[in-house]
Amino acid sequence: MKVVNVAEILAALDEEVAITAVETGFKRYSAGQTQVSTVLHLGFAEPPGDCHVKAAAVTGDEVFVVKLATSFYRNPELNLPSSNGFMAVISARTGEILALLHDQGHLTDQRTAMAGAIAARAILRAGSRTLGIVGAGTQARLQAKLLQRRLGLASVLVWARNSKRASALASEVRGEAVSLEQMCARADVIVTTTPSTEPLLSVDMIRPGTRIVAVGADSPGKRELDPRILSRGRTVVDSIAQCVDHGEAGWAVRAGLIDPASLLELGSLLEAPIAFAPDEIVVADLTGVAIQDFEIAKSVWRRLQSGVRG
Amino acid sequence: MKVVNVAEILAALDEEVAITAVETGFKRYSAGQTQVSTVLHLGFAEPPGDCHVKAAAVTGDEVFVVKLATSFYRNPELNLPSSNGFMAVISARTGEILALLHDQGHLTDQRTAMAGAIAARAILRAGSRTLGIVGAGTQARLQAKLLQRRLGLASVLVWARNSKRASALASEVRGEAVSLEQMCARADVIVTTTPSTEPLLSVDMIRPGTRIVAVGADSPGKRELDPRILSRGRTVVDSIAQCVDHGEAGWAVRAGLIDPASLLELGSLLEAPIAFAPDEIVVADLTGVAIQDFEIAKSVWRRLQSGVRG
Repeated sequence: MKVVNVAEILAALDEEVAITAVETGFKRYSAGQTQVSTVLHLGFAEPPGDCHVKAAAVTGDEVFVVKLATSFYRNPELNLPSSNGFMAVISARTGEILALLHDQGHLTDQRTAMAGAIAARAILRAGSRTLGIVGAGTQARLQAKLLQRRLGLASVLVWARNSKRASALASEVRGEAVSLEQMCARADVIVTTTPSTEPLLSVDMIRPGTRIVAVGADSPGKRELDPRILSRGRTVVDSIAQCVDHGEAGWAVRAGLIDPASLLELGSLLEAPIAFAPDEIVVADLTGVAIQDFEIAKSVWRRLQSGVRG
Repeated sequence: MKVVNVAEILAALDEEVAITAVETGFKRYSAGQTQVSTVLHLGFAEPPGDCHVKAAAVTGDEVFVVKLATSFYRNPELNLPSSNGFMAVISARTGEILALLHDQGHLTDQRTAMAGAIAARAILRAGSRTLGIVGAGTQARLQAKLLQRRLGLASVLVWARNSKRASALASEVRGEAVSLEQMCARADVIVTTTPSTEPLLSVDMIRPGTRIVAVGADSPGKRELDPRILSRGRTVVDSIAQCVDHGEAGWAVRAGLIDPASLLELGSLLEAPIAFAPDEIVVADLTGVAIQDFEIAKSVWRRLQSGVRG
């Protein structure tokens, strides 16, 4: 069992290789070629924290991946990051632990940002130039940089509840801190990245043709969008099952605003791209699927195996 | 994150300390002081294998434990052990992985044997001298030795489907290979340790006063006892929920032979011991509870921390 630390992992992570792998993972997931486990969960009250374990396999693959992730929200008070954990790369032939990628949450952050970029590209309107980022945390920063770089979005607008952090992120990505109303009036695509439990974007703010990638709602109770936004256009989801259970789509389904049968899975969309009408509102609802962990961990493990270190 | 290998783990494992810890774990579990997760599972067809992840925490404790275990049944053809995996000791204050005990299944084997010894002691008739062991694998060997040593059972009888392996184990523990009928006629306490999916012990074989510890049935489909045995006496279970779901008790409940309300949980029995009547048939049905993993892993981790190495 090889233990790999964060520095080695990030050195071995090739963005191009990994993003292609994650894209392939979505296709395999929607094609039913994967095995994604139920999620194991423990919760802690004092200090507040939780632990999740997820696992995924691809039929016939030589390895599978189990991810353990912890979040303890008061860690920053102790000068520790909130996230921790690892991804274990395990032989699907013998059950041996081949590598323990002690990523402390970094690979999850990266694969989540990559999913945002993949979804944004799949729903983007031709000629899009302006990116809106809701939130100013780790995921906001990663999404802003990745989408800027990969989708050629020249202009970035940032909004966050904490205006200081919004300004800091805006200056870091050479963007502009704005109000939510300004963002909605100007952005071609908006990525929402907060842990909000109340809608931040209301249906009245959204112009025809707006594309939204919603990344924040990854567990029950979280939401960033007025569910009526989904009923005004098309909704793409990373996983129909997960998004109906605890994504933005779930709120809209429970409110009777959309039919689960209308949901389009990202992997299917990637396999058979759709040209959305320019004035269509399209939402991509991303809850995070364990197959993304499988793909990014495997891509890092293979590069480490072949001696490539970035 | 400290990674600890099998040799270091076994050197740091103190039987007395660990068995006391596992006993305490059962009490805490039955007293509702623990958090035991759902089980995460992946299955593989070719070669056949599976991966389970379980987790447990004790309310207020400084750590929690996540166990990953794989079983690939054809590994012996490759000169590899069937079992692999690790137990992660994680801070319940910050989520940091404190230690990764890469036990490759050994701690699970040990805690399962310890549970057998704890359950056997709790239901044993005074004056018992003869132990019966059904099976001749790793768990049969561990149970035979541990119960011989800790319960003063002078005589050991062994039966296994493979009579060569039964004889080998019998000679290893200075016992005697016998038929199942002979075992039932002579043994005071019988421990069943096989992965059987059909009853091995029939109700007609069992004398009044016999005590049985059934360890084999740990997942749906497995069974070693004629369910009518349970209806003839008292049944102790490591977990009411788990045993009704996939233990020997479950078969008896589904056959309408016993009432789930009649089941006595081992932790409650340890907390308030019962003097069973000498001629009572008592079955202890052990499916394995994640709190046992928590306790044995924590006991090893604490000894490693304090620099004690056996």
